[in-house]
Amino acid sequence: MKTDPTAAPPPCTGPRRGRPRSEAAEQAIFAGVEELMAAGTSLAELTIEGIATAAGVGKATIYRRWPNKEALLIDMVSRLEEPLPESTGSIRGDLVAMVEYMRLRGLAKRSRWVLKAALGQMHSWPELHAAYRERVIAPRREAARQVIRRGVAGGELRADLDEELLGDLLIGPILARSVLWDDSDLDDPQLAERMVDALLDGVAGPALRPARA
Amino acid sequence: MKTDPTAAPPPCTGPRRGRPRSEAAEQAIFAGVEELMAAGTSLAELTIEGIATAAGVGKATIYRRWPNKEALLIDMVSRLEEPLPESTGSIRGDLVAMVEYMRLRGLAKRSRWVLKAALGQMHSWPELHAAYRERVIAPRREAARQVIRRGVAGGELRADLDEELLGDLLIGPILARSVLWDDSDLDDPQLAERMVDALLDGVAGPALRPARA
Repeated sequence: MKTDPTAAPPPCTGPRRGRPRSEAAEQAIFAGVEELMAAGTSLAELTIEGIATAAGVGKATIYRRWPNKEALLIDMVSRLEEPLPESTGSIRGDLVAMVEYMRLRGLAKRSRWVLKAALGQMHSWPELHAAYRERVIAPRREAARQVIRRGVAGGELRADLDEELLGDLLIGPILARSVLWDDSDLDDPQLAERMVDALLDGVAGPALRPARA
Repeated sequence: MKTDPTAAPPPCTGPRRGRPRSEAAEQAIFAGVEELMAAGTSLAELTIEGIATAAGVGKATIYRRWPNKEALLIDMVSRLEEPLPESTGSIRGDLVAMVEYMRLRGLAKRSRWVLKAALGQMHSWPELHAAYRERVIAPRREAARQVIRRGVAGGELRADLDEELLGDLLIGPILARSVLWDDSDLDDPQLAERMVDALLDGVAGPALRPARA
């Protein structure tokens, strides 16, 4: 299909542009969702009507911004996330920044119960999970991949390992600690550096080191 | 509280001992659960009565084995897991066996939809999730910890890194690939060796290697 530059723009599925956005209304809507979830409402039970009532706005105020509750929830969860870290100028620094970002996010998830509840329930809600993967997880994995690609190109990372393996080695440990184990230690501010340096240097001890060097 | 050796044993919460177990009845019960879940019944909707009907057994046949559906489901899911790997005689071999175990389990989870459905829904069911952690995840983490402890003691692993960090570095990458990314490659039979060797040797390239050696 050819693109016709004079055609109407595709239907907007995110917040509407070209209309002054009311920060206050959005904050009220997000607060309404938090209030409902704090009262024990599951994601599946949330309705636009219930959110509107809790937020003290009309349903139209919500529909003007989001086409459905899935879009609203994804937007809300992804705004709770910090922006991805900027480049630090060194590959080691960028790897540490990426792991540190995941550590802080893990801490935030523990303190922000709405994030925890939403992420926990998402597993049983495939549409929302898919949207979350696309909006939040995919950009994060892509950012990690770009640092790795630059590292391989610049000789900071081994060129004989594939990108996907390097990505899992880099991000897997902090994900295990922040997502899979609820009880593990995320407080150590040196954790990201310790993880990245152990990965760069290797964990073989003296008994294996001479044979492997 | 002192333990009185003449006291009655604590109430049994697993399958009853001292009574001939009927393998056939258990298989019928497990098949009943699979059938119900295949028909779209969620974990929360499952009842002992429904399982008994699907399995063609009486409710008492189920209650003779498990005190409630949570115990039945945990038992069912944990029997779908392979026994943990035996020691191979070398630390590298044991680390590879541990990661390979997780890889095969990830593949099994993809093919056994009952495992996938149960694990997916468990997140929204804290009691079941807690029992699963205790029965399945904790022994696996403990097994990994023991290999790591032996490796540190024998000089195969660096002694300047703590056990928890080593455990996350070892298990995190395969967990990320098998649990968190549904779309990633688990088919490579060399994956476990590649992951463990990259971790042992380190992933720093020539540009970082001289400065870090």
